[in-house]
This record gives sequence, C-alpha cells and structure tokens, in this order.
Amino acid sequence: MGSVGQVTDSTQNTQILLASRPHGEPTAENFEITTSPIPEPGDGEVLLRTIYLSLDPYMRGRMSDAKSYAAPVEVGTVMEGGTVAEVVESRDPSLAVGDIVLSHLGWQAYGVQPARHVRKLDPQRAPVSTAVGVLGMPGFTAYAGLLQIGDPQPGETVVVVAAAAGPVGSTVGQIARIKGARAVGIAGGPDKVAWLEELGFDVALDHRSPTFKDDLSAAVPDGIDVYFENVGGHVWDAVLPRLNTYARVPVCGLVAGYNDTELPAGPDRSGQLMRHVLTKSLTIRGFIQNEFVKAHYKDFQAEASGWIADGSLRYKEDVVEGLDNAPEAFFGLLKGKNFGKLLIQVSDDPTR
Amino acid sequence: MGSVGQVTDSTQNTQILLASRPHGEPTAENFEITTSPIPEPGDGEVLLRTIYLSLDPYMRGRMSDAKSYAAPVEVGTVMEGGTVAEVVESRDPSLAVGDIVLSHLGWQAYGVQPARHVRKLDPQRAPVSTAVGVLGMPGFTAYAGLLQIGDPQPGETVVVVAAAAGPVGSTVGQIARIKGARAVGIAGGPDKVAWLEELGFDVALDHRSPTFKDDLSAAVPDGIDVYFENVGGHVWDAVLPRLNTYARVPVCGLVAGYNDTELPAGPDRSGQLMRHVLTKSLTIRGFIQNEFVKAHYKDFQAEASGWIADGSLRYKEDVVEGLDNAPEAFFGLLKGKNFGKLLIQVSDDPTR
Repeated sequence: MGSVGQVTDSTQNTQILLASRPHGEPTAENFEITTSPIPEPGDGEVLLRTIYLSLDPYMRGRMSDAKSYAAPVEVGTVMEGGTVAEVVESRDPSLAVGDIVLSHLGWQAYGVQPARHVRKLDPQRAPVSTAVGVLGMPGFTAYAGLLQIGDPQPGETVVVVAAAAGPVGSTVGQIARIKGARAVGIAGGPDKVAWLEELGFDVALDHRSPTFKDDLSAAVPDGIDVYFENVGGHVWDAVLPRLNTYARVPVCGLVAGYNDTELPAGPDRSGQLMRHVLTKSLTIRGFIQNEFVKAHYKDFQAEASGWIADGSLRYKEDVVEGLDNAPEAFFGLLKGKNFGKLLIQVSDDPTR
Repeated sequence: MGSVGQVTDSTQNTQILLASRPHGEPTAENFEITTSPIPEPGDGEVLLRTIYLSLDPYMRGRMSDAKSYAAPVEVGTVMEGGTVAEVVESRDPSLAVGDIVLSHLGWQAYGVQPARHVRKLDPQRAPVSTAVGVLGMPGFTAYAGLLQIGDPQPGETVVVVAAAAGPVGSTVGQIARIKGARAVGIAGGPDKVAWLEELGFDVALDHRSPTFKDDLSAAVPDGIDVYFENVGGHVWDAVLPRLNTYARVPVCGLVAGYNDTELPAGPDRSGQLMRHVLTKSLTIRGFIQNEFVKAHYKDFQAEASGWIADGSLRYKEDVVEGLDNAPEAFFGLLKGKNFGKLLIQVSDDPTR
C-alpha cells in the first residue's frame, strides 16, 4: 500500500475545476486546482474519500458547450467523472464507514453524495478499480455496443476494433472472440500491438504504420462485418471501403476529432459516406451505454465477472498517482498515450 | 384503350440497349434503340409483350460499373427494368395466352422469360400497373424501410420524407399516418406540394423555396424522429441538425448525387455527420427492399391492398407513351421532373 501524498490532507478538500472552455486541444489553463473545506454530509448522505478517479475520452465533450447527449460541465465547477471512493462518514443506514463505493464525485479528493446515488462494491469479487473499468462504464460500453448493435456471428464475422488497447476496445475484441468471431484489433504503437496479441486477438495492427491500409486489407480478406467505432479519423477512412454488405458500425466515440475547431478541408466526403451506407446496406448506430443499462446491465455484470474469473477477459490499468496530475494525464488520453484503463489514484486503496 | 403505335409491330422487337456508360448525367448517346426479330420461347418459357415498363432511379446505378449492391448492365445489352406484360405465347402449363404478368423484361417491347420467373397478376384486384408501383417494388421499399427500420411510433413521431411526391415517398408518408405518426413531406414545386396536402400529409414543404430551412424548422418544432432518405443533397443537410436523439434514418436512395463524377468541394463534413450519429445516438441504415421480401412481402401485399381498397393509400402515375421516349423520361426522373410513378406505356393495356 503506497502513499499518494498531499491530496490525502484530511482537513482540506482538493478540487479541479473547469476554468475555461478549450478551443481545440485542452491545456492546463482550462483547469484550476483549488482547495476548500471538506463538506459535511446531511441526512441520507455520505462523505466519500476518492480512491480512484476514472479519466475517459467523453470528458472532452463535457468541457464544451456544443450540443451533445449530456449537459456540459459549467465553468467554475468541479470536472465530472466516475470514482471509486471510501465512505469516511455516513448519515445513511445503508452504508458504513469503510465501505467502498462506485460514485460520481468528479475530479476532487472528497465529496458528499446521497447514499442512494452510490453503489457498494464487494472487494472480494474483483479489484474495486474495475468498477470504473472492465466491470464499469467502459466494459459495459463494449458489451452493449458489440452485442446489441454489432451482433457478431460465430465463424465468418470479423470484428475490427479501433483503439483496441483501450478499456473499451480491448473488451470488445475479447468478447467478440468469446462469441466465436474473429477479432482484428487496431492500436497505436508496437507495445499495444504486442499486448493485443497476448490477449488473443487474431490479428493486431498498428495504425501508425505507413503500410496500415495494406495491412488492414491483408488482415480482412473477406471484408469486415462489424466495426466498433470509437476513434474516427484515418482508421475509419481505411475501414469504410472494406465493410461488407450488412456490416454494423456501433459508434461510441470519435476521439480523433474531439479537439477539432473547424471542419477539415475538402473534398466533402459526407455524400460518399452515405453512398457506402446505401450500396452496402450498412447500419451506422451511435450509442451511449446508458440506453442499454435497464435491459442488459445485470447480464453484463454476471457474464463479465465470469469471464474475468475464468481468464477469458483480461484488462490493463494505467494508474497515475495524484489528483494534481489529472489534467496532464487527460491530455495524454486524448492523444492515445495511455496504455490500458487510465485511472488517477487520488488516495490509497485500502483493499490492496 | 389508346394505341401506342410503332412498337406494337408484331414481327419485330424493339430494344433499348446501354450503348456506353455515362460520365455524370446520362445522355441520349448512352442508349441505342435497335430492332431485332421477336424471340421464340422454349419449353417452360413464355413470350411476353411489354405493356408497362417501370422507370426507377436505381437504374442510374445499373448504368455504372462502380461497385454497388447489384451487377451493372453490360454495355451492348438491354437496359434492365421491371415490366407488366401480356403472355402472347406460352410453353408452360402455368400460364395462358392473355395472362398479365409481373416480369423483368427490361427496356424492350417483347421478351422471353421462364414461366417460373414471372408472377401472374389479377386485374380484378388492382390496376395491373400497380404491380410495378404502389403494390410493387416502390411500395414495398416504402413499407419495409419505414416499418422495419424507421419504426414510427404513434403520436409524437414525425416522419419526414424527401421526394415525397414520388412513388416511394408518397407511400411512406401515407403509411406513417396510417400508423399514427405525423407526416411531413418534402417535394419540389407547388403542384407536388399541393398533392401531398391532398393526400393528407400534415405539412408539405417545397425544398426549392428560398425559405426551405426555416420552413422545415417551423414544421418540426419537436424535431424529427424518422427521416426516410431517398434523395440526399441539400434536403439531408437541412434534416440532419433537426434529428432527435434515437432518430432512425432508413436510406434507400440518394438520387441527388447519382450523377456526381467527383467529390464535391470542401469542407469535409463526413466527420461532422459521424458526430451527429454519436451525440444523438442516431441509426443510419441503408437497405434494398429484397432484404425484407421473405419476411414481409406477404404482409405488405395484404395490408397495402386493403389500404388502397379503403382509400387510405393513394397513388399517382405519370405515364409516358412509347418505348422510344424512355431515355428522355428517365433523364427527367433523375431531375425530379416526373410527378407520380413513372411508367412507359410500351403497348396497349388490355385490362383498361
């Protein structure tokens, strides 16, 4: 059990606020690190100490006020984010001091939440950090998008995953294989490619290679039946002409374009994209995992826990220590610098 | 019963061949009108006299050798197309001289087909021309695309149809209303708009109006839940930002771009399109009606016949006389000049 230092100061809270909205790539100036008194829980509430803060690409969207599926973070307020936290004070009978919970405290060291808004975790079942990773939102994004939209069929189906070494992509590829499909993973750099091979992807490709397009063609001689889109950009450009008739494209992220401030130069390829949709009877379907929670979350928890237990679903965490380092780690995430699920260790994990 | 003239010459067949592939807009030079002896049916075959030739936008695709969902017409061969024809000689016990059949003779006055490849029509049930219109491929395209992909819900759902005065679009809008949805139709020109109002569309808009975008906004105060895409171009541009979360976009045609020879000038809006897909959880789904025939064609025939009989589904035909006029009529179709289902009357209809 290592010590994480300054942010565990037990009299002061540390918070990272959205200081201004980024124009293009976010910078340190868009964030403000402040301290304030630790808040007091009211009736039915708990005071929580953040152990892990999850950093995820969707947060780039919350920094902007462009219309999206969720409201933006207001300037001057705490950046939002999923957290694994320890109960340090409880004013609700359902939770006791020392309980570890999944919560949504955002980028801060302490926070108060209604007890009914958090979910108690069982450290015996899986490491608690997985509640914001393979057994949490990223894992469920992979599970729901792949199975409900991608619907891979055993045997002939090829699943191509962009950002395959990320927490979503690595789960998509492994579930595709569990379901009997052939998984081709695409990631950036030899380390990530090597890890995909270790995970059992049938083929792993480096999208930074100068021969990437040809490598992809060689990897999918029968075309692509499911493409799990979480990146956009040049990977999508390479995939689109290789999609088969009736191919399905679940779209859960487009990180390559998150920092764009204006439309790229022409020609305008939007009509060409629609022509692919028409001539190949493609399904392109955007989604946010929330949509599937009610119908499929319980199944996911049961299935994914089983796969983790039997070794068929593996995951990797990229843990950065110290809340102060969250902005820098987040910038790296948007550039694909993380390797595995990116977590900020805000304070010690008492279960390890 | 009017006389259609030269092409009913009973000793010679008239055929329209694809003479060359168009570059951009097709012209008369891409077609060749030839005469040849009337063919002889073999065992199990019938000799057919074409009454109606259906002209449809998909034929533009068949003139090109760009990769698509169907093989192109070979240069030097008869242009393909659906036909309603009369049996003039039968060498199969299932069909008698005088029977009227749905067939696929293409752009010619006579043709031989295996009896098992044609479907006998009942002139008592509906005018035989509807077999290539509202009760045929265009009608089924509307029915299957709207109900299987668009899935309009009663009440709040708004269905927007481009090319709403065409055989597909007019059927989409009327079925949407039959299913309890609100139908907004978009067409080109005041005559078509007036006809949509006559058909009972809740709102009908002219996409040629300089105020079209504002008109559309006013017509869909609660946004658009289903957009039936068969046009593309500036109508799609106006619709896209007005789509609601979870909107469905069945795509069965993109006639506005069929003659494009190169990508339009920038900026490149393909990434923006994908961003709409992501942030609004859109479903964009290309389709060809064939995909749904096995599961839904019988239901379509039963339901659509009933709606026609009770007056809730109406249709309009735009009949051009004489096979020689097919190329010119086809050029007009690609520009939206037809008003209703475009048919070439190749020879007299004995059932009228």
